[in-house]
Amino acid sequence: VNLGPAEIGQRSETVRRSNLSTIVRVLHAGGALSRSDLVARTGLTRSAIRSLTGELVAADLAIEEPPTLLGTPGRPSPVVRLNPEGSISLGLEIAVDSLAATVVGLGGEILALTREPRHRGHSSIDEVIVALARLADHVLDERPADTRLAGIGVAVVGVVRERDGLVSMAPNLGWHDVPLGERLADALALPAAVGVANEADLGALAEHRRGVGVGTDDLVFISGEVGVGGGLIVGGRPLRGAAGYGGEVGHMVVNPAGDACRCGSVGCWETEVGEEKLLRRAGRPDSGGAGSVDALLKDAAGGDLRAIAALGETARWLGLGLGSLVNVLNPRLVVLGGRFGRIFPFIRETLRTELDRHALEAPARLVSVLPAGLGVDAPLIGAAERAFDSILADPAAVIASRLGSAEPANPYERASA
Amino acid sequence: VNLGPAEIGQRSETVRRSNLSTIVRVLHAGGALSRSDLVARTGLTRSAIRSLTGELVAADLAIEEPPTLLGTPGRPSPVVRLNPEGSISLGLEIAVDSLAATVVGLGGEILALTREPRHRGHSSIDEVIVALARLADHVLDERPADTRLAGIGVAVVGVVRERDGLVSMAPNLGWHDVPLGERLADALALPAAVGVANEADLGALAEHRRGVGVGTDDLVFISGEVGVGGGLIVGGRPLRGAAGYGGEVGHMVVNPAGDACRCGSVGCWETEVGEEKLLRRAGRPDSGGAGSVDALLKDAAGGDLRAIAALGETARWLGLGLGSLVNVLNPRLVVLGGRFGRIFPFIRETLRTELDRHALEAPARLVSVLPAGLGVDAPLIGAAERAFDSILADPAAVIASRLGSAEPANPYERASA
Repeated sequence: VNLGPAEIGQRSETVRRSNLSTIVRVLHAGGALSRSDLVARTGLTRSAIRSLTGELVAADLAIEEPPTLLGTPGRPSPVVRLNPEGSISLGLEIAVDSLAATVVGLGGEILALTREPRHRGHSSIDEVIVALARLADHVLDERPADTRLAGIGVAVVGVVRERDGLVSMAPNLGWHDVPLGERLADALALPAAVGVANEADLGALAEHRRGVGVGTDDLVFISGEVGVGGGLIVGGRPLRGAAGYGGEVGHMVVNPAGDACRCGSVGCWETEVGEEKLLRRAGRPDSGGAGSVDALLKDAAGGDLRAIAALGETARWLGLGLGSLVNVLNPRLVVLGGRFGRIFPFIRETLRTELDRHALEAPARLVSVLPAGLGVDAPLIGAAERAFDSILADPAAVIASRLGSAEPANPYERASA
Repeated sequence: VNLGPAEIGQRSETVRRSNLSTIVRVLHAGGALSRSDLVARTGLTRSAIRSLTGELVAADLAIEEPPTLLGTPGRPSPVVRLNPEGSISLGLEIAVDSLAATVVGLGGEILALTREPRHRGHSSIDEVIVALARLADHVLDERPADTRLAGIGVAVVGVVRERDGLVSMAPNLGWHDVPLGERLADALALPAAVGVANEADLGALAEHRRGVGVGTDDLVFISGEVGVGGGLIVGGRPLRGAAGYGGEVGHMVVNPAGDACRCGSVGCWETEVGEEKLLRRAGRPDSGGAGSVDALLKDAAGGDLRAIAALGETARWLGLGLGSLVNVLNPRLVVLGGRFGRIFPFIRETLRTELDRHALEAPARLVSVLPAGLGVDAPLIGAAERAFDSILADPAAVIASRLGSAEPANPYERASA
């Protein structure tokens, strides 16, 4: 907080922008609220809430509805909610086995979502761009012509430099230093910025805002497919690290006497808990993908001892690595995404036993392990959520662009009612 | 930022408090600055700086000195620095081989520092409290009678619940759930709060504020003694985790086929890079402490092949674990504290080779490895630094307590000069 003793007028404008941001964040996170609840949740005065929500309504960003009488004491208060059609974001995802697109409305409502299978293996950037552009057209086609786009987020199964969306490394795609952000912005040619991030980082964001991690400020999201990705929320904020590469938990070394990893190292966590090893442990072909894992789970449920043993061994390595992460990060919650969410019911107890064996007692006591609330769509929804970040940070800029140079309402006016 | 549209008078007071905090933080971090430099660094107006530094001077927290003429254009500007005697903090440390105390002045000057050897092994809380109280008396005795204490910080080689200073686990001391914070507050009976934290967390803080990590917002501090501690700075802030237990990197599992660890797990990083293993690898008794490590280093420098091989093996495990941490956290800097700082010159190349082998290329390119700038005193200095946090956050509260109910100067007055 460093407002500086500028002119009162300038300070008022700074405070107005900040208060608008607070209101939009609260509504985006928590859904519709009465004006009275907004007063309670933001600490702003009733007259400020009235005036600022009026601005949001005028700019089509919010909708006010008549109060519902619930038998509570006091005068009923109009209900404010964000307008999902007033500002949308486009989320795209490049996963190992699929490509996906979604349109999310301000406030978090999913307005469209489509996912199509992708041939596992290397793909050229050109192929992927064409396919994503087609999916984007598809989900956007259903929107009204005057829909306004807040931003475009892209989740990719790889190591991403977030500044410019360069994919430094994506072994599952065969990519090395691919300028995905730039290429996609050119191809889509939409009037909004494109932000690219690692799929697990976005999965963490989505679970923190919309999934099992709501209200939990320290969480580890791990996503298991062929590789293992991770996304970390620390003190309520995504851990980015120096350049957005943070969270590559799949490449912690857990078994130096183990297998070579595609990354060039040896004994990475993903060599022990990834899908290929699970299938090999069960004596099955390791290139089978989601269908093979489903078949293995079905056999395990039916009592197949080799499938059960393979799941147990994977669970032990999963618990061991989670123990390390619990010691380093002291999270309140570990969220298992991707394939890990599906196998969780089969490995829950072994995983927990191993976690407790390797984590220190004090942080182990504090941590829960849960499957992703948003299932396999967590990274895709996270991509769309990330694309709202600029409107959440400064809705006043959007209001100004929509209402032209009209004087903003004065948030300090003393309203009579 | 959620000031809310309160009365202008209240907002002015909020802004004044915040601006005072900004000024004190800038001076505490950067040392003496001319008023003009303060204007440039804080974005505040000249008149606000004049008025607010006036308040700090009146409360004995800062000193203004006549301008020095340096041949720069423009009117010379008085130099402002924090008054190290105006507010001090007491730092204490419980390390494996020593106990220490320091007095640091506001602005970071070390006014006194004493360290005495401690018998390695288990100690009763009573013994330790008595010894620390004696050291505290010793460093405080030299201070003038009217010195005002901003806070007391304690670094301890163990897992600490920061909320109340409970030491959950300190195997080197033989402690389990020891209420160190409470006991020390009672014994010292000084008019300031006692905050307890893990020694490596405080080492990280100290290196970030005063050492090789100044200006680096993502760093990993690791401290090697018998055990291995870690402190993490993420996005410019200490990583605490859910309860302050974060950063226990010594208990990442790096070798599941390795040795049992004192923590109850197997193959923890500290079993491979700790002092005992280094000494055993060199065929020496493993209970020797600092002196034995020094002897080993001397022999290695003299060409002793077994000592050289032992250091090489420790370097490989150190690099492997750092590779994992680089993948998880994407730090800009790794700071080697404690004994690691001393052995670093002997292992630099092997360590770097192994780090690069296990870390992904993108984050590996961005990370440097350096020995601690503050040497073995990093945790102790961090303890004293942490104790300044409340005065840095709200110097206005201290001003109010010192100047009584006098009206504060108006930071918005238009000064004529």
